[in-house]
Parts: sequence; structure tokens; C-alpha cells
Amino acid sequence: MHIGLVKLATLGMTALTLSACVIITPDIKVEREIETHVEKHATSTPKNIIMIVADGMGPAYTTAYRYYSDNPNTSQIEATIFDQWHIGNASTYPASESGIVTDSAASATALAAGIKSYNGAIGVDVNRQPVTSVMHRAKVKGMKTGLAVTSQIVHATPAAYVAHNESRKNYNAIADSFFDDRINGQHKVDVMLGGGTDYFIRDERNVSQLFIDQGYQYIDSYAQLSTLNNDAGALGLFAPSGLPWALDDTDSSRLRSMAQTATRLLDNDQGYFLLLEASQVDWAGHGRDINSAMAEMQDLHTMLEWLVDYQAQHPDTLVVMTADHSTGGLTLAANGEYRWEPAPLHAINTSVTAMIRHLIDNVDEAAFRLAYIEAQLGFTLTQAEQETVLAMDMTAKTRALEDVIKRIIDRKTNTGWTTWGHTAVDVQVFAVGPGAERFAGHQDNTDIAKRIFELLE
Amino acid sequence: MHIGLVKLATLGMTALTLSACVIITPDIKVEREIETHVEKHATSTPKNIIMIVADGMGPAYTTAYRYYSDNPNTSQIEATIFDQWHIGNASTYPASESGIVTDSAASATALAAGIKSYNGAIGVDVNRQPVTSVMHRAKVKGMKTGLAVTSQIVHATPAAYVAHNESRKNYNAIADSFFDDRINGQHKVDVMLGGGTDYFIRDERNVSQLFIDQGYQYIDSYAQLSTLNNDAGALGLFAPSGLPWALDDTDSSRLRSMAQTATRLLDNDQGYFLLLEASQVDWAGHGRDINSAMAEMQDLHTMLEWLVDYQAQHPDTLVVMTADHSTGGLTLAANGEYRWEPAPLHAINTSVTAMIRHLIDNVDEAAFRLAYIEAQLGFTLTQAEQETVLAMDMTAKTRALEDVIKRIIDRKTNTGWTTWGHTAVDVQVFAVGPGAERFAGHQDNTDIAKRIFELLE
Repeated sequence: MHIGLVKLATLGMTALTLSACVIITPDIKVEREIETHVEKHATSTPKNIIMIVADGMGPAYTTAYRYYSDNPNTSQIEATIFDQWHIGNASTYPASESGIVTDSAASATALAAGIKSYNGAIGVDVNRQPVTSVMHRAKVKGMKTGLAVTSQIVHATPAAYVAHNESRKNYNAIADSFFDDRINGQHKVDVMLGGGTDYFIRDERNVSQLFIDQGYQYIDSYAQLSTLNNDAGALGLFAPSGLPWALDDTDSSRLRSMAQTATRLLDNDQGYFLLLEASQVDWAGHGRDINSAMAEMQDLHTMLEWLVDYQAQHPDTLVVMTADHSTGGLTLAANGEYRWEPAPLHAINTSVTAMIRHLIDNVDEAAFRLAYIEAQLGFTLTQAEQETVLAMDMTAKTRALEDVIKRIIDRKTNTGWTTWGHTAVDVQVFAVGPGAERFAGHQDNTDIAKRIFELLE
Repeated sequence: MHIGLVKLATLGMTALTLSACVIITPDIKVEREIETHVEKHATSTPKNIIMIVADGMGPAYTTAYRYYSDNPNTSQIEATIFDQWHIGNASTYPASESGIVTDSAASATALAAGIKSYNGAIGVDVNRQPVTSVMHRAKVKGMKTGLAVTSQIVHATPAAYVAHNESRKNYNAIADSFFDDRINGQHKVDVMLGGGTDYFIRDERNVSQLFIDQGYQYIDSYAQLSTLNNDAGALGLFAPSGLPWALDDTDSSRLRSMAQTATRLLDNDQGYFLLLEASQVDWAGHGRDINSAMAEMQDLHTMLEWLVDYQAQHPDTLVVMTADHSTGGLTLAANGEYRWEPAPLHAINTSVTAMIRHLIDNVDEAAFRLAYIEAQLGFTLTQAEQETVLAMDMTAKTRALEDVIKRIIDRKTNTGWTTWGHTAVDVQVFAVGPGAERFAGHQDNTDIAKRIFELLE
């Protein structure tokens, strides 16, 4: 029944679009002409497709970013690119055996292949059988393919577009799949940018070298991005696993840098399919870390600002963006106060992870610890907070130490969290370019892949 | 800058709608014809407008209701009417003096009059000056007007459509305004249904009687709804203040009953503007009460199921629905578990408020208390929960006693909350009927009133 109703909803939107032209005209001939045009449009396809997954970016995150990025020197609240491109929402539940709350693997498999699977599934269905992704389909069609992500490139989201594995945890096997699996004798992905040398350069197998031997360009620093050319495939791995937090990285706009390079390398007459992922919004949510959450959102938004211009200059490019789920149970206000104040976050230029690392490595005395934390946060702690910091047991686990500082930031901003996992709230869908209207209104996450498959027919 | 960008976003949607007809046609003549039709459509107006406010219904609530109302006998998740009618999202922030997190008064003033005001404002701007609402405009235009809500009818949301007051707390003064304020000598509202005898029938002034003296029909029970006719105005007040929880009310589908009566009374050649409010979704959120939250959502959805048919039979009726904000920081999953399980809620047929009232009034012994609570909840408590119930101090405040049971239900369903107030997350917008496309994509809550004003020109 569900599929029928969702289809009905989608048809409802189509009917609504049609109604703008058809319903009120008394002229049958013109009606028919219009219908013909609508049909023609419905079968028109974009040349390039850029799919963006913002991992964990539920509606509270995009809302938060609007207020976080607001220019305090104007009397109005500025709209974000999320606001400009917002077109629909999507449900994210996995296959019924995993309940209602999805993980990134099941959701990525839904977004990539259009089917519901179990939590942990990488490009396989509930029977553990491989399923075709939109990236595979694009490759079969003769398009170039690419991915640029801020996690390791074998992490759940990119993995589900490329590989097939019973478990997201099998990073080494997934890295092997990136090299071993072929489509019509070709590697599945032409351009791969992100982290993950730990999984590609292993004692028993050097997958990076295998790619080099087959003519791929290989780089391991952002500075080398500009050296890549589009004569051959490219593999860029900039960290052992995920990239550093945006706040701590040498290139705080690394997603934009990678996206610029990927689109430059992929541009060709047959078109391309490119997956971009702001992977670490989710990681900030898991860490209940509003400081890094907003910094990762800014990394994404900086890329989007560039993409607005790129898409305008390449109007045959469809951009679709969504989240796979929401993370952390983030709420903008907490504890009965009608207040959410992100402004203090702009003065914090280091991740809480890095702060704790610095304290463990360099600071012995509690008084210096307090001074360091206040300097990093840019505001004076309350008496109670000062006492908590002075009493920190620096031999405790890193996570517990980070929590002390994160909760101080939460009190300052009045941020709420309910979990260090995921929640089931529907996510937003954003789209611009030819075919964007297919993603309007409510849909299921599997419908997003289905619409992209249609555009790749 | 904000307003400009939002307009751009709205234009973007319009352009997108146009593109479905225009962009790909090579025939200039047909293009012009299409444009003419689009213009005609853009200036066409609905005869009737039904505005629905679901107070406090952030995106977690509509998502939750889909899984709560899922038919367990089918393999698919059924779509709700929220899914079918979802068309956009809206930001809800109040005037800057109140920060980012709105209350129901500022948000209702935004939805009713299209302006940002301070938290607490009822139909007045930041200078405490009255502003015109879409309901006023409809009345000036010669349309009939009505409201049917599950709160007292002088509560923030309906009040902002009707009255002007510096503070939402001035219920008596707002009730007076309902009678004293006139538009062209006429009362502002033809049909008023909800709660609030405490504010209308006072020792020093009987506002209900004043309405009766001016020819209004007056009723105080649901059973009398069928006796109302459309020859004169109607005032129905069914409770001293807000109506009982849907779970405890004599008519668990009271919003549908009131909406059916209101539309019957308002139907006329000049059209009508009707405000419907599911007021108590918000109250359940304030109480961090997932049991009543889902029951109030069901009351709303039952009304929507009827409204789907009504709108189909009255296709000249525009329905617009949104929330004024989200309440409680509700999250679907909590505490690190990837689980949200609403099924046990279907066995709970009493509000937690009523359970505690029953215990205080009727049950002395702790063992009977435990048996009663387990019977009401329909599941066996854990050992720890049993001990908590046995240890309840029944002389404590009602709220603390309710919290014991609510937290047990939260653990069973794995529901999270972060506040007993509101949060800033964007809300969803739903629309169907002529003019619905104006509410597509992202908008501010003030834009919703602006679009309705345009339709009332």
C-alpha cells in the first residue's frame, strides 16, 4: 500500500505542476499541446548528476546553520542555500528487520540502489545479494563516475554506491572491491577523493599501488589536487582513515577543494555521476558536538556556494542533496529555555577533540587547563563550570573529557541532544537543475534512487 | 537580504513549475499561450480557505505519526495525509528581540498577519500596534469566517487571527475583543468552536450571553453541534478552558466533529476563511508525553481523512497546514539505541494525566497502584520501574507523578525529549487545492500569511 500511496503523492505533485498550465484552460487543443510538452520535459535528462549526501543532517542541522551563519550586521536573517534549494522531504526507515531507525549503510543502499535493506548492508539486499547502484548504471551508460567525501572513501555512504558487502565494517574488503570489481572491464569509479590509506595501503595488499599500476594518478595531499589531469583516473587519499575535523584540517574548505577538482576531472561529453558527502556532520552528531557540527555544515555550505555558480554555468547539471538520517537527537533549545544562541561558536577555532589532545599532551596543572579552555572557548566559565574543569581527571577516557567541554558549550548555546546514535525523523531533500521537480514533496529515500535511475535510462 | 532571497526561492519554484511547460518547447506561439494560462492560474483564487495550525507539530511529530499509524498487517509503511500534502518547510523565528525560538503567540501573529513580532504578541507588532490578519481581510471581503480549536478559543493561535493584545495571557480581554471588535459593524468571527467558558462567562461580564443577545446560537456540548444552522453565527464552548485530552474526551475525534460543523455553517456563495487548530499537540510536547502527543496527532489526522474527501468535493477550497514551532525537543530514538517503537501506545487508552488523577482520588495502597498502572499501560514493568512506582510519593506535585509514568513509556518506546518548552527547528508546510503551489519549497512563516493575503486580494 505504501508504494502506491507514495506514487500517488508524487503524481499529486505532478498534477499540481500540470495544473499550473492545464486545468483552467478552456482550449482543448492547447491542453494537448501542453501535455505533449510536459511529456517531453519528463523524458529530458540532465547530462551530469551530482548527488550530495550530508550524513546525519536532519532538519535541526539545516535550521541551526541558518541561525549560525546569520550576518549579525543586518536586521534580517539571511537565507542559506539549503533554503534556496529545499524542495521536499524523505523518510529514511530501513528494512523492517532493522526497525524504524536506519544506519548510514542501509540508508546509503536505499539512496544508491532504491531498495530497503538491513542496517549494516553495503549495496546488498535483505538476502545479502548485490544490488545495482545509480553509479553503476551511470558507468554502464558510458558516463564518468566520481566520489569526494570527508570520511574514508570506504565508509558506509560511498561504499554503498560502489561495492557490495554484507557488513559496512569490512573496510579492507570494500577497498579491495573498489579495485577488483569492474563494469565492462572498467574500474567503477574514475575519481576517488577522501581519506583511507589505512585500508588501501596494507601490508598484505597495496590497493593504491594497484590503481597506480593501472594508470591512475595517486596523490596524498590537498596541495597536489591541482596537479591532477583528466587524462586518467585519480585516487587521492589525504588521511589514514577519515579526514581531520574541518576545524583542525589544513584546508577548512576541503569539501569544496575536492568537489572543484572532481568536477574538473569528470567533465566530458558523455556526462558524469559524482557523489559528494559531508561525512562528518554525522560524526559531530554522534559526539554530541555542536561546535564541530556547525563547522562541518560550514564546510558543506562553502562547497554549495561554489556549486551554485558551477551549476549556473553548467545548467545541464542536476544537483540532488539529502541526508541519510539525523544524528544525536539535536534540538535547538533545551531545558525549558526559549533560547538557542550559536554566536559564541564563531570564536571557537579548534575542535574539542584537539583541545583535549592538547591538554593531555601539554598541560599538567589544573589552573593552566582552565586558562587554556577559557582561551579556546572565548568566554568566561561560570563558577560551577570552572570547578568542573579544575576537577577533571585527565587519566579518564577521552570521550568523558571531551564531554565536559561539550556540555559547557551546550549550556552557552542552549543546545540539546538525546542520543549518541541516530533518530528516525524525516530528512530534507534539495534539488536544482534539469529533473529537479521529480524530487518535490514527500518521498521515501528509495524514491530518490528510483528517480535518478529514470534520469539515467 | 533575507526577504529578497526567500522571494528568489519562491520565484525559483515558480520558474521550476513553468519549466515543466515552457523551457523545452521550440514553438514560440505555444509558449505564449502557456504563459497566459500560467498567469491566469496565478491570479485565480480559491473560494474557501481552510488554514490548519498544528501547534507544536515539528517534523519529528509527523514522522512519528507515520510509524505510529502504520498498519502492522502489511509489509509496507503506509503514507499519511501529511506525506500526501507535504509541499514545503517554514522557518519560525520571532522578532529579533525574542531571539530565535518563537512562542505560539509570535508565530500565530506571523501566520495570521505576515509580520514578525515578539513572544507573547497577539495580533500586534513590535511597537504594540494592531496588525490586520488574513481572517480580518476575508471578513472585509465579505467572506464568512470561523475557527475551531481544541484549546480555549482565546488561546494564542486563534487569538492572533481575531484580536489585538500586548499579551497572550490576557484571556478575559481577548474574549471581550471577540465580542467588542467589529469589522464594518459586523462581528469578526461567524463560527467559534472550542473551549473557554471560564473567559466568556465571567461574574462581571457574560460574553456568551452578549453573543446570544445579538442572535448567535450558543451550545456547550458536542451533541448540540448537529442542532446549529447557518442562519446565524454560532458560539460553542465545550470546556471551562482547553478541551480534555483527546484520549479522555467524550468525542475522541472532536476536531473532525467541529470541522464538519464549521464547514457546514460557513458554506456560502461568498466563500469562507476557517482556522482549525490541533492545539494540544503542543501541550503534549510541553508535558513530554508521547502518549497524548500521538493521540492528539490522531485527532488531527482523523479530521484530515475527512478533509481529503471534503476538499475533493469542494475543489474550490484551498487547505494550508503548518505548525507554529516544534515542542519538547521530541526525538524518535534516544540513549544510543537505534530503536523507536510506538506500537505499545495503541494499548494505552487513557492520558497519563487521568491515570494520576485516578490514583490520587481512588488508590491508597502501593501494590494496587502498581497493578493499576500496569493495566493502563498494557505491559509489565521492569523490576526497576516497579520499584519506582511502589516508591511514588502520592503527595508530590502532579507533574512529578506524571513524569514517573511518562518516563516508563519513553523507555518502552525509546522516545527522547530535551525541553519542556519550544525549539527552533523549521516546520513543514502542507497544501492542497487552488493556490497550493504558492507554498512550495522553503519559506518563512510570515510568507504563509503574505501568500494568503495575495489570494484574498
